[in-house]
Amino acid sequence: MSKITVEQTHQTEDTKKAFRDAMASLSAAVNVITTDGPAGKVGLTATAVTSITDTPPTLLVSINRNSGTNPVFKANRKLAVNILESNQLDVAEHFAGMHRTTMEERFELFPFQKGKFNLPILEGAIANLEGTIVAVHEVGTHSLLIVELDEIINHESGDGLVYFSRRFHTLPREIEE
Amino acid sequence: MSKITVEQTHQTEDTKKAFRDAMASLSAAVNVITTDGPAGKVGLTATAVTSITDTPPTLLVSINRNSGTNPVFKANRKLAVNILESNQLDVAEHFAGMHRTTMEERFELFPFQKGKFNLPILEGAIANLEGTIVAVHEVGTHSLLIVELDEIINHESGDGLVYFSRRFHTLPREIEE
Repeated sequence: MSKITVEQTHQTEDTKKAFRDAMASLSAAVNVITTDGPAGKVGLTATAVTSITDTPPTLLVSINRNSGTNPVFKANRKLAVNILESNQLDVAEHFAGMHRTTMEERFELFPFQKGKFNLPILEGAIANLEGTIVAVHEVGTHSLLIVELDEIINHESGDGLVYFSRRFHTLPREIEE
Repeated sequence: MSKITVEQTHQTEDTKKAFRDAMASLSAAVNVITTDGPAGKVGLTATAVTSITDTPPTLLVSINRNSGTNPVFKANRKLAVNILESNQLDVAEHFAGMHRTTMEERFELFPFQKGKFNLPILEGAIANLEGTIVAVHEVGTHSLLIVELDEIINHESGDGLVYFSRRFHTLPREIEE
């Protein structure tokens, strides 16, 4: 066990490490977030996606301001959340930049289609959610994108792909009784 | 598979259902969020918790505005995120209101201690994170609480408790090779 008190006036590397260790224990679904439009076509792997409200259907996506994709999402004002299935680990790795592929190559490697609102949606994902960025809140190093959904595709099958304890895990949809 | 287009001017029950189905496919860690202070001592089970930034250590917690706990968190301006371990399913159920226990009973049933900043922290959790609410963004039915952490306790062991496909799941920390 480790305990650390955060001194707000003096952020240390120890503090950041303790925070990152805690967040590594916060299991989260793995998603590929995509956009296409006047500012370009990009995508990235993200776990910081959270449901906000169903009236209207709205979710939050947090994206690092240092990511080259950040201004592209904001300029296009549209994005798609593709919730990955457990067998799409390779998609997650490529869009996380773990294989040195170019952005163009990543979109060529995997079966993307144009969604109803012209966003890249990934075949075989658990769900494809196209939406419009209706607000942005900047919080330190990250942008919180508030996204109202325009199109919801649920595949209603497939196991989950979850990041926990710095590894990818498969989460079976059905529990053996 | 199901597809639904969201008509922004005419939200239907079908739209809400499609959104809730999609969010049920978005795996998330299960947490009990607690507070104590002048406005009272309350807690609730929440999956809408997301890492925001490590400089300074900040996370986001989304809480329904219809929850009686919502104004208590805001008035106390402090909260703790307890990331549940897989054997704490009963804690999740009680704080989700599934067993008709009173708030007082819920805190008595489980081993809470006072944290360094006097917030209720749960023994046996994977991590206990005490923080200060530094901003609130209202988005429809929910309040997004931006929380800067003051104290971080990592237990560095224990399996995850994850909600996916409308069920609780255990996520083993170690993968069998």
